[in-house]
Amino acid sequence: MRVRAGILVTGTEVLTGIIKDKNGPWLSERFRENGFEVARITIVGDRPSDLLEALEEMRNAGIALVATSGGLGPTADDLTAEVVGRFQGREMVLDEALEERIAEILRPLAHRWPNLDLDAVRAANRKQAVVPAGSTILDPVGTAPGLVVTPSQGEGPTVLVLPGPPRELIPMWEASLSTQPMIELLAKTPKLERRILRLFGMPESERAGTHREIEQEGLDLSRLEITTCLRRGEIEIATTWEAGDGSIYDAFEEQIIKRHGAIMFARNGETIDELVAGLLKGRTVAVAESCTGGLFAARICDQPGASDYFLGGSVAYSNSVKIQQLNVTAELIESHGAVSNQVAAAMAEAARERFGADFGVGITGVAGPDGGTEDKPVGLVWFAVASNAGCDVRSVQIPGGRADVRERSTTIAMHLLHRALRPS
Amino acid sequence: MRVRAGILVTGTEVLTGIIKDKNGPWLSERFRENGFEVARITIVGDRPSDLLEALEEMRNAGIALVATSGGLGPTADDLTAEVVGRFQGREMVLDEALEERIAEILRPLAHRWPNLDLDAVRAANRKQAVVPAGSTILDPVGTAPGLVVTPSQGEGPTVLVLPGPPRELIPMWEASLSTQPMIELLAKTPKLERRILRLFGMPESERAGTHREIEQEGLDLSRLEITTCLRRGEIEIATTWEAGDGSIYDAFEEQIIKRHGAIMFARNGETIDELVAGLLKGRTVAVAESCTGGLFAARICDQPGASDYFLGGSVAYSNSVKIQQLNVTAELIESHGAVSNQVAAAMAEAARERFGADFGVGITGVAGPDGGTEDKPVGLVWFAVASNAGCDVRSVQIPGGRADVRERSTTIAMHLLHRALRPS
Repeated sequence: MRVRAGILVTGTEVLTGIIKDKNGPWLSERFRENGFEVARITIVGDRPSDLLEALEEMRNAGIALVATSGGLGPTADDLTAEVVGRFQGREMVLDEALEERIAEILRPLAHRWPNLDLDAVRAANRKQAVVPAGSTILDPVGTAPGLVVTPSQGEGPTVLVLPGPPRELIPMWEASLSTQPMIELLAKTPKLERRILRLFGMPESERAGTHREIEQEGLDLSRLEITTCLRRGEIEIATTWEAGDGSIYDAFEEQIIKRHGAIMFARNGETIDELVAGLLKGRTVAVAESCTGGLFAARICDQPGASDYFLGGSVAYSNSVKIQQLNVTAELIESHGAVSNQVAAAMAEAARERFGADFGVGITGVAGPDGGTEDKPVGLVWFAVASNAGCDVRSVQIPGGRADVRERSTTIAMHLLHRALRPS
Repeated sequence: MRVRAGILVTGTEVLTGIIKDKNGPWLSERFRENGFEVARITIVGDRPSDLLEALEEMRNAGIALVATSGGLGPTADDLTAEVVGRFQGREMVLDEALEERIAEILRPLAHRWPNLDLDAVRAANRKQAVVPAGSTILDPVGTAPGLVVTPSQGEGPTVLVLPGPPRELIPMWEASLSTQPMIELLAKTPKLERRILRLFGMPESERAGTHREIEQEGLDLSRLEITTCLRRGEIEIATTWEAGDGSIYDAFEEQIIKRHGAIMFARNGETIDELVAGLLKGRTVAVAESCTGGLFAARICDQPGASDYFLGGSVAYSNSVKIQQLNVTAELIESHGAVSNQVAAAMAEAARERFGADFGVGITGVAGPDGGTEDKPVGLVWFAVASNAGCDVRSVQIPGGRADVRERSTTIAMHLLHRALRPS
């Protein structure tokens, strides 16, 4: 029986869908990595009674660790610390060292806004330093301290109280792992290993059969927790196993490689964007795109340090721009259409030449919702990568709506560029 | 006392963060629009005991309407219908009319995959047609029917059982509104009106004061549910009120306009992207961008029909590209730097001229993490919009990391373009 954990996300703006919660799924992954079984994620508003109710339900459900996010701010409706104190049967006390620590954090901010109401700031500061007696304090990353609060007596979950903003929550979660109550819980969870394989280009129909086939060959996959999912057009096989079952995983991975090695591009969770960025070191790339409208250039630039290898791009949305800016001739468009093998290749070559890059990428397609024909339906996209080794051109018929076609196109183009960059 | 509602999202892949849940927040907004008070969103995995437990907790919390999403598929671990049947004290029965309805949906699919195992398909079909006795059936949009299930006896929540894929869930939610159990619940909820105002350019510090000031002038804002939030650099004021309180809302809106009318750009929820698209009808635009790396062009193209007014763009990431492709002279970069008033203006002018557009937009800035100097720190971005009325240039120091700077830059550029397009 695994140690059960729950996540309690608080905040009316999250509950009402105005702010999208990222903490629940993030904490869920961290819990799993650390060997907990995640029983649930509950989102409640700012009402203390709802918060308390949710905590009590988690206790009744046999949950041993609860992480809360949000409700640690300086205002009156930020009540998580107080509610958790009540839940654990602990009085609220002012921690003077913590008050001073928060005051130190606030001092430089007060300088920046000379008209700030200092009394209000001091009151807010004090409120954030009132914590359940006997809790372990996690140093603030913003101004809000986190807490690890165990029951004052009897059985019940340890509650890890974290702030809502992810840039505060993430490092404070890391810090919580070295607190005494967390160390004690972690001693009861199995040590897990995790590995992510990524594949690109497998037909959906082949996918379902793979695991069954591998099991039929006698490998006991029940010792592995395998999650296969389709993400941005790629297949991701994430596997978790308990220390000691490494040889089963190795045998499983070997079988996957035997079957699908040719289309596996990452053995250790690397993204295609990271791989392309790495392979571009010392080389340069430029792009010419139509239906993706700048998305592919933007995706290349997402990587910090992209200015070392990304020279630039042309977004050629209209035919006249393709002609003027990319030396695609009117005759070429006339005879083959703007969405064609020939125009994609011409765009890739033009990007390479005009920007003086080692690699040129061309993308032209029908993103929809309009503009499709019987010959060239919505979703048809041509891709080309030009280099001194020649020009690699191919087309894909992408399912889905306008946003899907554009997004998926950037993934396909990235893989084509990867193939051109990879030492063969 | 408002009628309370809860949302129960099921699925191990959602719980573990592999799939991002969109149904919880979406249903939460629909519940609120229809006058329910949303008490909580709970996410559980595929284990029936966790599902049943969550339903019982919602009953204990006095929740009158529960919507579930997911777990209606044809496989053995899709157990939502059965668990809800048990929860409501209703036997599971085969609905033969429904079985035939699903068979009809599957027939054309079977044609497409001639190697399909027809017995397996029939078994799956039958499984999906086994429903709690006496439930109201919502016609499938995919292959899974939805259900509205009331307690067989006594008090308890009505459970609305919906499939997981949003494109099925959304129309089936709409359909559920005309079922008898939903009509009865809706008769107990207040009729609400909703309006969204959007503002751009208000300093954070002014924001907090506004509502307080308006209340001090004697308006009873407690009759309005006002949510103010910062989203993509804009302020959104979403207000909900009960029919009958319209005059209070009108007075509130009047006060907002009196104070912030100059920076309010939408009175009815329109996005800046939609407004710009509307104003561009009959005119054309082209862009030249550096730090945003194609994101601004891509954002313009996000709108269906953008090809009517968007000609194209240049992504000039390196200085050499700025010089070659955009006629920005080396001297200009030498004397003012690539991130400068002058270069932004030259880029906007060049985009306009080279693409032959009515409007040209130029963006150049330091996105980070590297490349910042004391003079030109990370986050400094210059914007320019050129038209036959001249060139409007301005700079903004954007806080946050690389992704924030790039994303926020596209919003600022969109607003600058909006200002240039708007009849003055």
